[in-house]
Amino acid sequence: MSRRPRIAFAMGASVRQRVFPPHRIVEFEQIADIAGYLTEYGSDAARDVLSDVEVLVTGWGAPRVDAGVLAAAPKLEAILHAAGSVKGYLGPEVIDRGIAVSSAAAVNAVPVAEYTVAMIVLAGKRVLPIAARYQAEQQEFDVEAAFPGMGNYGLRIGIVGASKIGRIVIEMLHGYAYEVVVYDPYLSAAEAGELGVSSVSLDELLSTSDVVSIHAPSLPSTLNLVDARGIGLMRRGATLVNTARGELLDQDALTRRVLAGELFAILDVTVPWVLEPEHPLYHSDNALLTPHIAGSLGRELGRLSGAVLDELRRLAAGEPLEYEVEAGLLSITA
Amino acid sequence: MSRRPRIAFAMGASVRQRVFPPHRIVEFEQIADIAGYLTEYGSDAARDVLSDVEVLVTGWGAPRVDAGVLAAAPKLEAILHAAGSVKGYLGPEVIDRGIAVSSAAAVNAVPVAEYTVAMIVLAGKRVLPIAARYQAEQQEFDVEAAFPGMGNYGLRIGIVGASKIGRIVIEMLHGYAYEVVVYDPYLSAAEAGELGVSSVSLDELLSTSDVVSIHAPSLPSTLNLVDARGIGLMRRGATLVNTARGELLDQDALTRRVLAGELFAILDVTVPWVLEPEHPLYHSDNALLTPHIAGSLGRELGRLSGAVLDELRRLAAGEPLEYEVEAGLLSITA
Repeated sequence: MSRRPRIAFAMGASVRQRVFPPHRIVEFEQIADIAGYLTEYGSDAARDVLSDVEVLVTGWGAPRVDAGVLAAAPKLEAILHAAGSVKGYLGPEVIDRGIAVSSAAAVNAVPVAEYTVAMIVLAGKRVLPIAARYQAEQQEFDVEAAFPGMGNYGLRIGIVGASKIGRIVIEMLHGYAYEVVVYDPYLSAAEAGELGVSSVSLDELLSTSDVVSIHAPSLPSTLNLVDARGIGLMRRGATLVNTARGELLDQDALTRRVLAGELFAILDVTVPWVLEPEHPLYHSDNALLTPHIAGSLGRELGRLSGAVLDELRRLAAGEPLEYEVEAGLLSITA
Repeated sequence: MSRRPRIAFAMGASVRQRVFPPHRIVEFEQIADIAGYLTEYGSDAARDVLSDVEVLVTGWGAPRVDAGVLAAAPKLEAILHAAGSVKGYLGPEVIDRGIAVSSAAAVNAVPVAEYTVAMIVLAGKRVLPIAARYQAEQQEFDVEAAFPGMGNYGLRIGIVGASKIGRIVIEMLHGYAYEVVVYDPYLSAAEAGELGVSSVSLDELLSTSDVVSIHAPSLPSTLNLVDARGIGLMRRGATLVNTARGELLDQDALTRRVLAGELFAILDVTVPWVLEPEHPLYHSDNALLTPHIAGSLGRELGRLSGAVLDELRRLAAGEPLEYEVEAGLLSITA
């Protein structure tokens, strides 16, 4: 690696402008030589850039790096991904050739965790259903009688998946008077102890938690992880928060219980991605739907490009990467 | 003080049942003798209870302790208040006689701080206006274009009032990528430094903060603290969070800017206490109104009675109180 690495950006053009605005590019230029800005790897111009590039900075919408791209980039030593999952962007050849891969997934996880914790607090206090009723009735009412069990003290919070995001949520929840339990088949009891939580079965988590938050990766094995039976186990008055993927739960079963007034739902993800028009959840006071906004957006993109800039500084200084993706983890992490 | 203090509860009857349910009373009986449950101090029965009581446990709706009550309670050594402010419940004679006063205000502040931090995160991400638009349009839209400046990274949060609640909020915000500034005329620069924040003028706070949260006490001197001119200083797109008292700000000026789409408002308190029917804020997507729920409610009341129980244990053991109200603070704290 050169002391001033030769780098190229490769991602969707609009993504690049959002994540790497001009003032950020200036910071990259202070420590690296920018060979070009790519949106594909096939053209002669792109091949020319690849021919002597040492570091690729990738992001959402990046073209896939496969054997052909690697052959065109003989000096490539590292790929720094300014987004979450690198799945889909990298062929197995990247690992085989020993190219270092860094992902901003840990950094990208922060907004999702912050969003989740805020929603847990709101759910524990029943803020949104109370606000909806206040708006409808425009008079005082007995909120404790209307929403029994409300209040953020001694609630049990169930975290499904000790993923990067799940772990940050767990860490943040230590500041609250909650009991936190986690379900994750990859988490040992010792690791759960280090996280300061109890590891329980999925059934126990669903049947005893006041708020359930989903942080599992989307994989064939996690499809419908919280199925209709699992939704049926949830306590009356409990809230389900999903910022992960809609496919992880049985949306129809959840919808039925929400419309029956038995459960609350805070869904940043659904199936399909944009819920079909006139879906009843749009108009239920017991549901909050948002169009996939929990992840990094707006100003939060600055955290991603900042993390990549820091990684590039480490590379140039010969220091180890902070967010290197271990090859063995690529198959089970999102 | 006896090793098993003789205590009486004095507060509204329904408050007593909510804050001190039977399982909690059992815990008090383990360390104290309960002389009675009072809702007033005037009757012969009440005078009889007062005659040998050492500790009064008070709460919302408690009758006021004045010179007459003190004369009837010659053995009274301490008043433990299971709520926030003791103002209005105690005459100056209480301090003059050297009776120890403890308030659960610090503990009661926790739910308000948690509510506030959750609302700051939601405000930073524009969650509620985005959800409202998604519900209305039922299709994807460019949230970054629709809500420029969104995202919880690098925002400036302005805390008006380094009160008990304000200080907990500041402490909690250290976990986020925010710049926090505070306005409080009673806060020295050194104290601000200890809190890890910058102390600024109210005008600077209002004109530079992305979210302004009010945590000042309600006093004659703080009436209309954020007046129409101050509301006018706030940045376009900023959010005002008020969990303190409606009288602290110019509600009409705020309403005008919210309805014009220039500001967002999250109001747990208003003037009047329940906003008049058909007030336009009820139906603005840029406002969230809740009926004074940020404070301790439901399960959170258990935190108050638990704190009083712990104080009583300290008294019985001859240890100093943890939440003693300093006489000199009674005039400026809420």
